[in-house]
Formats: sequence, structure tokens, C-alpha cells
Amino acid sequence: MSGTRDIIKAAKAAAPILAAATPEDKNKALEAVAARLLSEQGDILAANREDMEQAKATLGAVMADRLLLTPERIAGMSAGIRDAVALPDPVGRVRERVERPNGLIVEKVAVPLGVIAIIYESRPNVTSDAAALALKAGSAVVLRGGKEAFRSNAAIVRAIRLGLSDAGLPPELVGFVDDISRESAKELMEAEGLIDLLIPRGGAGLIRACMERAKVPCIQTGTGICHIYVDAAANQEMALDIVENAKTSRPSVCNAAEVLLVHRDIAADFLPKLRERLTDKRVQRGLVPVELRLDSRASGIIPGTPAGERDFDTEFLDYILAVAVVDGVGDAIGHIAAHSTGHSEAIVTEDADAAERFTRGVDSAAVYVNASTRFTDGGEFGLGCEMGISTQKLHARGPMGLEELTSYKYVVRGNGQTR
Amino acid sequence: MSGTRDIIKAAKAAAPILAAATPEDKNKALEAVAARLLSEQGDILAANREDMEQAKATLGAVMADRLLLTPERIAGMSAGIRDAVALPDPVGRVRERVERPNGLIVEKVAVPLGVIAIIYESRPNVTSDAAALALKAGSAVVLRGGKEAFRSNAAIVRAIRLGLSDAGLPPELVGFVDDISRESAKELMEAEGLIDLLIPRGGAGLIRACMERAKVPCIQTGTGICHIYVDAAANQEMALDIVENAKTSRPSVCNAAEVLLVHRDIAADFLPKLRERLTDKRVQRGLVPVELRLDSRASGIIPGTPAGERDFDTEFLDYILAVAVVDGVGDAIGHIAAHSTGHSEAIVTEDADAAERFTRGVDSAAVYVNASTRFTDGGEFGLGCEMGISTQKLHARGPMGLEELTSYKYVVRGNGQTR
Repeated sequence: MSGTRDIIKAAKAAAPILAAATPEDKNKALEAVAARLLSEQGDILAANREDMEQAKATLGAVMADRLLLTPERIAGMSAGIRDAVALPDPVGRVRERVERPNGLIVEKVAVPLGVIAIIYESRPNVTSDAAALALKAGSAVVLRGGKEAFRSNAAIVRAIRLGLSDAGLPPELVGFVDDISRESAKELMEAEGLIDLLIPRGGAGLIRACMERAKVPCIQTGTGICHIYVDAAANQEMALDIVENAKTSRPSVCNAAEVLLVHRDIAADFLPKLRERLTDKRVQRGLVPVELRLDSRASGIIPGTPAGERDFDTEFLDYILAVAVVDGVGDAIGHIAAHSTGHSEAIVTEDADAAERFTRGVDSAAVYVNASTRFTDGGEFGLGCEMGISTQKLHARGPMGLEELTSYKYVVRGNGQTR
Repeated sequence: MSGTRDIIKAAKAAAPILAAATPEDKNKALEAVAARLLSEQGDILAANREDMEQAKATLGAVMADRLLLTPERIAGMSAGIRDAVALPDPVGRVRERVERPNGLIVEKVAVPLGVIAIIYESRPNVTSDAAALALKAGSAVVLRGGKEAFRSNAAIVRAIRLGLSDAGLPPELVGFVDDISRESAKELMEAEGLIDLLIPRGGAGLIRACMERAKVPCIQTGTGICHIYVDAAANQEMALDIVENAKTSRPSVCNAAEVLLVHRDIAADFLPKLRERLTDKRVQRGLVPVELRLDSRASGIIPGTPAGERDFDTEFLDYILAVAVVDGVGDAIGHIAAHSTGHSEAIVTEDADAAERFTRGVDSAAVYVNASTRFTDGGEFGLGCEMGISTQKLHARGPMGLEELTSYKYVVRGNGQTR
């Protein structure tokens, strides 16, 4: 029996203690964890310095910044845990209740999942965020972070566990896989009967491996090839604002737009404005210009890089936008069905019928009318928090908040009923 | 490209047409399907006679009866489809709606899953039941039944498709896998991007194969090692009624009880009464007696077969009941956690505290107080119908009704919001 399996088993053994804890007990424990993150920050920063030192050679500046911890960032992690304290407890809520003609009272009651495992990459703040949300949802958690952040993650987990102990809860509720190998990922994927939900958060390769190999229930997250369709009846100024925001406000995230579809009737008018807004004007303002990769119809209207075969199926995560001209809302829906990852898509239009066709016809987690795809986020949707964004249809779709991290059971009360 | 994959692809291609259909259109199609089952019953009965002829040699009487179709049973299948017509349409319902401070209106709207695949065994009525529920839930369906019922299932699907065509919907919405091989099951399990939900309905081997090998989202159903715990504070007459009902009213189904746990303080009083009720009295009434398999403590009180090593981990599906004496509700919860499949468990007690401990502490799909486990059923829980009983915690737990056969998407309406 390996170390990883022992860690999972210990988490499962501890889970019923947390499941039986009151909302107050859980919140006290989260407060203690938040306090420990601050009191242990010397250790955490020291561990992070070692990670940064090691990563220097291999990571670019952007990735290195994601890895870096500062007192401010640790304070932010601690505050994030206190935010979880303030959220309503998702466990024990009676979702539905019915009294049957035979007198049975059937209640559908929210319960913890049990053990949630998360395989993630790079950013160490995920360690405390994910642990806090899982604990708040009443579940034990097993964390397997990336190699680059290994020491930082280990130090953060030590602080979290001290907090749990302070509050009288077993530290095994937060399991930490210290063997960052393919083998340990495989053990998580195959821990049938021990892990109730596995969430892969990271690159497409990791997510694909989990979907293909996992024998435990798994939720596909993240990859976002998000589309914006600018309809013939669009307010074009609004469209320019939305496209620029969705593409450039944070190009590295999954809800950033990667593809723009423009109705043929306005393409000759709109595309030159788009080009000006995303290239010349951004250069004037000292901002990174967006590279436009154009299909043949768009190429006939504005200059730009001709789009290659893969450009409409690529999550660029960069200042690159693929642009195509389409024949109308039906054509846009068809293009999206063929190329989208089912994350977030938007239509810009003043035509209520076109908006209705688009919201009905597009089969993605979030479908927008006249707003940026960047809003696909647990906080922005009013869930209060988020454990990743599901791009599958089973269990949870879109941002996963506390409710999506719970299950339910039926509690049936009778007075001797038989069937 | 194989036939099975073509069938799945055709179902997926047809699915958006059904997803866009109105509740009225869907109901008209179901009415047409119900009518065709009756008008085509000659063909269906002829096909069933061939199946019965072939099965004679291999199937026992009970299994043969499950396979048999009669005009009455076909009328029942047709009526079952009309029952689905009467159910509220699950698609399009706004599950939640929130207006955000920035003016965005975020709605969580129920949508069809897309393509639901079902691998099932023996009973041909599942063919029409499953197709009707999937269609009502707005999804295309791909059916792969068992070898024994192959001709019957094929004839039923032909009738269903005629009904769809009558109503102007594509017959490909109900796909039928006519290659009953391991290879075709594998193709269903691996149809990533084509199948949104795979439901295995059948024996433990089939379900296990799906959970281990499926690369498409899959829901574990069915296996039920259900427990009844008779507490020290039980009404013993009620306990006898519940145990007899849960064990004998239909021993072959997954919500039948397999294990009885009795509090040590009443064991000497209760077990002799149990034995009388389940053996002697049943023989007097001309009913099949129940074989009791006793742990060592129960063996010290009443005569019976000594329980073997596997008897507390076996879904007997027969007139056999494993019996153990436990030290109290905590011990009962522990035994259930170690041996249950997470389906249905009951406590019989007049002690509110013991009931509360049991309903909180037992982690199964349905937990009963003073009622038979036999009520775990979509109809009995007020869902109106059922596509199997989930024993996993993700997406659906317990009976799966129409709501559990849908997903949702977020529809977000704005007036130019950017982030």
C-alpha cells in the first residue's frame, strides 16, 4: 500500500467527523485555518522562496508571477477563507419535501460528497481556496498540486492542518499528496470507493487524462474556446467594448474570448472598426495589440494573419483572436456547435428574436446576450465562490459553488408503512 | 466506422431538433408512439414469440416470464408512455434567477442532456419506458438491450420510430444497437463527445464494467444490499411487518432488504418472533419461507443457517435474510458503512434521538424511519416515473426522474456589461 492511498484512506476515515460537524463548528475551524495562514506565513514565504529559486531556470515571467507569494497574497488567501465562513452552509438544507398519500414524508436533504480530490497546477493559492470550499461543503479533501509549487503547497497545508487541530478536528481532513508523479495521479483516478469526486484543474492534457482514465466520478473543467457573435442588429460600439474586454482584460483565463464571428451584412462596416480598436488604438494607449487571425471572408475586408486550420479550435490564452464572417445567427450557432468547448459564448444584438434563437440554440455552460464572456465566474454569478468551471453536463455545469460540491439523500419518515 | 458509432452519431445529429421542440410537440410525438405500440402489437408479439422460443432452453421460469409480452403488457407499455405525456415538462424551467448589482440577469435554465445511452438486460418493457422518459426530457436515446429480448426490442423500437415519423420527428432520435456484443458496449462507453450520459441497468458485472471503462459520463445504478435496523425502542409488531414486507414482497428487486440488524437488548425477545413470522407462519399461509443466515450472536438465540463470510456482502435477490445482533445505533451505522451499497436502509424505532442519529449517520441514497425500504422508487417518491436508481453521489442519487435526466445552462442577459 502506497503513501498516496494511505492519505486518501485517512481522509475518508476522517470525513464522517466533518460531515457530522455543525455549521458553527465548521466555521470555527475555518477561522482557525485563516488565522494559522497568517501566523505561519514566515514558513510559507520561506518555502515559496525555495520554489521560486528552483523555478527561475524553467518558468517564464508570467508563470513565475503566478507562483510568487507575498505577505499581501497570503493575507488575501486568509481573507478568502473568511469569505467562505460568511457563506450559507450548504449541508442539511431540505431541497424538496413531499408528503405522500400513504403518509410517508419524503425529504431530499443536502449532504456532503465525502472525499473530494483535486489535481491542480502551479498557483499555490488554489491550495487554501480549494481546501476551504471543500471543508465548508462538509467534505474531506485530498490535494495534489504541481511540482513547481510543491514546497509552498506543503507549507500552506501544514498551516491549514494546524488550524484544524486548533479547532479540534482531525488534520487528515486535508490530505496532501507529496509524491508528485504520474503514479500518484493514477492512484487518485483509481481510488474507487474512496474518492467521491475528482476535479482536475489545469491544462487540457491533465483534464483529458482524468476523463479517460478516472474510475472515480470526475468533473471536466476549464478549457474555454469562447465565442462572441456580433449580429447584424448589434450596437457596434457595445460590440467593440465587449470584444475588447472579453479578449484583453485577462487573456490567460478560460472565460476569455478566442473567436469572433461577424454577420456578413455588417462585416464591411464593423471589421475595420474592430481592427482599429484592437490594434492601432491599443498601441496608441501603450497596450498589447491583438493579433487577428482571419478566415477568407474577413481577409477580404481587413488586413491580418490568415487563419490556419487549427485557429478556430485553439484556446490561445493570449492576445490572439480568430475572426470569421458568418451568414447569420443560425450559421453562428452551427460554427459554435462544431468548434466550442461548451464554456461561454455571447451574442451582441438589439434583435430580441436573434437573442432568443442564440440562447436556445447554443449548448454551452453560459450563454450571454450583450455582455462579456468574462463574467463566467462563481462570484460574478452570485454563488459567492467557485471551485472551477464545469464544461460537462452531468452534476454541475458552469461555475461550481458550494451547492455543486454537495450531494443529497432522501430521508423518509413513516409510521409503519409497507408496500 | 462501425454501425454502432453511426447510430450514435445519427442520434446526436437529431438531438437538437428534439431539444428545440415545444412541450406540446414532444407530447404529440409520445402520443403517436403510444398509439403505434398498439397498432404494431401483432409484429411485436410475433417477435417476442421468437425470442421466447429461443430462450426456452436457456432461461428459467422467472426469467422467461420477465421476457414474455402479452397484449396486456403491451397495453401497459403504451399506457406508461401516456403517463409520461401527463408529467410536467422538465426542459426550460428557470431553476434559479438572480439580478446582479451590475444589472446582469443570470438565469439557471433546465436543458436536455443531449444523448442518453442505456445498456440494459432482459425485460423488453424497459425499451419503451426508457425511450419515453429520455424523449420527454428532450434527449435522443441510444438503446442496447440484451440478447434474449433482441427481436422483441427491435420490434418495439420499430413501432416507436414509426410514431416519431408520424409526428414529424426524426426516427434517429431513438437509436437501437443491433450488434449485441462486447464491442458495441465498448463503443458506447467510449463515445466521448457524442454521449452525454450512459446508464447501465442490469447485473453487477455490467455496472462495474461501465464504471471502470466508460470514458463518457456514467451513472452507477441499482445494486442494493439494503439493511433494516431494529432498535431497542422499536415497536416490534411494526418491525415484523416492515421486515417481512421489505424481504418478501418482491425479493428480486434492488430495494428489497438483504440484511437485518437487531439491537442486543431486544434480540432474545425479537428474534424468536422474527423466526416465527418469516418461517413457520409463512409456511402455514402457503408462502415461501425465508432462510435466515445468522451471525454468531443471533445463532445463540434462534436456530438457522450460520452466516458465511460473504453473507453480509451479498445481494441475495431471494428469500434469504442475513441477520446480525448489534450493540446499538452506532454499531448499526458502522456495520452499514462497512457493508452497504448505499441504496436504502431503514431504522425501526420509537426513539426520536436514535432515528435522528441513524438518518444523519447513514450515508445511503434513501434512509427510512419506520417504513419499508421497498418505497425507494420514483413513483413512490412522487417523481412520477423513474429511469433507474442511482447509488452514486454525483448528479443524481436515488430514483432518477425527469429532472435528473436534464442538465442546465446559465443564460445571462445584459446591456453591454464588461468586466
